[in-house]
Amino acid sequence: MADAASPVRDVTPVAAGVMAPAGFQSAALHAGIKTATGALDLAIIAADKTASAAGIFTSNLVQAAPIVVSRRHLAASEGRARAIVVNSGCANACTGHRGLTDAERMTAETAAALDTTPEHVLVASTGVIGVNLKMEKVVPAIGNAVAALAPGKGDEVARAIMTTDLAPKEHAVTVQTARGAFTVGGTAKGAGMIEPNMATMLGFLTTDAAVPSAILQRALKESARETFNAITVDGDTSTNDCVLVLASGACGVTIDEELYPALLDGLLAVSRELAIAIVRGGEGATKLVTIHVRGARTRDEAHRVAKTIANSPLVKTAIHGADPNWGRIVAAAGRSGVMFDVERTTVRVGGVLLFEDGLPHDQNAPLAARHLNGTDVVIEVDLGPGGSGCTVWTCDLSAEYVRINGEYRT
Amino acid sequence: MADAASPVRDVTPVAAGVMAPAGFQSAALHAGIKTATGALDLAIIAADKTASAAGIFTSNLVQAAPIVVSRRHLAASEGRARAIVVNSGCANACTGHRGLTDAERMTAETAAALDTTPEHVLVASTGVIGVNLKMEKVVPAIGNAVAALAPGKGDEVARAIMTTDLAPKEHAVTVQTARGAFTVGGTAKGAGMIEPNMATMLGFLTTDAAVPSAILQRALKESARETFNAITVDGDTSTNDCVLVLASGACGVTIDEELYPALLDGLLAVSRELAIAIVRGGEGATKLVTIHVRGARTRDEAHRVAKTIANSPLVKTAIHGADPNWGRIVAAAGRSGVMFDVERTTVRVGGVLLFEDGLPHDQNAPLAARHLNGTDVVIEVDLGPGGSGCTVWTCDLSAEYVRINGEYRT
Repeated sequence: MADAASPVRDVTPVAAGVMAPAGFQSAALHAGIKTATGALDLAIIAADKTASAAGIFTSNLVQAAPIVVSRRHLAASEGRARAIVVNSGCANACTGHRGLTDAERMTAETAAALDTTPEHVLVASTGVIGVNLKMEKVVPAIGNAVAALAPGKGDEVARAIMTTDLAPKEHAVTVQTARGAFTVGGTAKGAGMIEPNMATMLGFLTTDAAVPSAILQRALKESARETFNAITVDGDTSTNDCVLVLASGACGVTIDEELYPALLDGLLAVSRELAIAIVRGGEGATKLVTIHVRGARTRDEAHRVAKTIANSPLVKTAIHGADPNWGRIVAAAGRSGVMFDVERTTVRVGGVLLFEDGLPHDQNAPLAARHLNGTDVVIEVDLGPGGSGCTVWTCDLSAEYVRINGEYRT
Repeated sequence: MADAASPVRDVTPVAAGVMAPAGFQSAALHAGIKTATGALDLAIIAADKTASAAGIFTSNLVQAAPIVVSRRHLAASEGRARAIVVNSGCANACTGHRGLTDAERMTAETAAALDTTPEHVLVASTGVIGVNLKMEKVVPAIGNAVAALAPGKGDEVARAIMTTDLAPKEHAVTVQTARGAFTVGGTAKGAGMIEPNMATMLGFLTTDAAVPSAILQRALKESARETFNAITVDGDTSTNDCVLVLASGACGVTIDEELYPALLDGLLAVSRELAIAIVRGGEGATKLVTIHVRGARTRDEAHRVAKTIANSPLVKTAIHGADPNWGRIVAAAGRSGVMFDVERTTVRVGGVLLFEDGLPHDQNAPLAARHLNGTDVVIEVDLGPGGSGCTVWTCDLSAEYVRINGEYRT
């Protein structure tokens, strides 16, 4: 992993979020989609000039209209975009032909106001599914938002994309390289239940480095693998998940193969912070759980073991109850479909050895229980002599999760 | 599926459970493994003579000692067995070499008392993992149990294998064929959290038909696919799961290819009843949820879609809250890894159409909500033009599940 190889001293957190990099403006307002609260529900992130763009999208077979449209535009523009328009309160998913027309129209209206083409606008939505967008509110709001574009208002974007999120999520870093410094910023929302309907994760990243589209796409994919794709709240992948990145080039640093690790470091630093914030804000979550799997034959096998542990309701409830239940961890690993030697497997919780050589070390349980009573839980599973590993983040499963997700949709 | 093709009128429920078929005796007693309660914790099911035997075992890579031993004995005996010895209160899992020795000894002691060979005895355990069996209590109990063997006491076996089960589970049927009648009986336990450690499902079936071992194994596997392997409480597969069947031949009916469908009918009827009872008794369960998937390209794809829906925490909490949330059902199907056309997919809850042609029918939501307020929920998902389907049973996810599984292990 590049983040392990590169010196972290070159990456420095800076205040602000998605508007930290130069060359971008944003606006957020209440369009009227979230009728109940009057909260911000529409935002635009615009580059001063057409920027490099990249995106990763939900693997769910059922894809919301904005996902279909943004994919199509990224392909048609060959990785160039001027702006991202996003709304909360309505996911525009399972809305058939009309949903596609509405998503296209959001990009067309944004493009017209910015004097660019619809293909240079990306769109994202989050909220209730199966409900059409109130376009009579969305269309004028887009015009008003474009008119209000200004720098330094990333915090409003972070709030405008929230649904049941407890707090806005934003982060930014400056990366120092031999050829100068560039900044990476971002904001994200989710992933817990959104409205009473759907867990959606959205992430928007920006950088003022100049990055060829192919390199930007590669770096986004590689960084997401270790961050956004390494978190799980309940294993349910939404129809609307996406992460988009724009590179303005406004700072004068151009990313080539030599500087690729620096770009990756910046994306990793911002994405990891946002991803962990998403898990900490997971519905009903009381603990952040970091699961390290090592000694696997391949990175994919490590990931499969880690995700199976992370999504096991028995493991998640045990952590919630501060029960150092290594048996559930071993059993989850065992049903992951990955072959490994149980006799050579070790399990540690909070650094405390609980299972080794096929046998428990229950005398250590009280020490591990003390660790589990905290809010940051670390589980380490070593599968043996393999050279691959990975880290996954999840949260505990609480009665509050059931309450939030079981309440009748009114 | 054979059960759909065969006339059900030939299968008649009869009172009693695993001891209903002729040619078997049983005994159950308190060996002292469950020290806290004094409850029954050891049982033996013995055929009057060596019987045909078959078994299916957990797919978890981590296999408890009794699983390893029973597999080995079934292979060595080429599908013949005289008895099954089973204990509750201790799973004898993750117990290393000593665990294997203890499981072997349980079969050897049973065999000695019955004057047969250890290979003709199968063994199963359920309870806490990572703890050794108290062999000084188990060994004399086995001798006492063999001495107490008698017919007609299947209800004691059903109670002796319980851990956190709310009620004993047993069922039996008589199958009428052109060549005479035979009986199939059974008992099962699980699957919710067992002790505070492990969800284990055990099933023991008997029949007084004479069945060649190969046919018995095939019928057990085929019937389990539609019953025991079609249920899920929390997606966690235990290290100790197994279903064993013995065929005494005492009723004089011999199963050949012609009567295979009748045997399958009998096994299906008993296994389905036990499997559904397990789900109804799932930890914290307040509703039995039957999920029918149709229109899939293959049976495996139907099963994958049904299991993904059944294990989705978002679907299970929505059902708990009586929320007719077709969106979570469609999204779960979409992330199952199976390709299908969302535009041709329909979702019904309690027979009420909620999603069709890619669009919701939310006007029907109140009617579906009324159905969801009951204790028996039926979800139907039609994926389109495919000819394959399957049925899976699960339960809702309640705050009580979290409470039961999150309590600290004392």
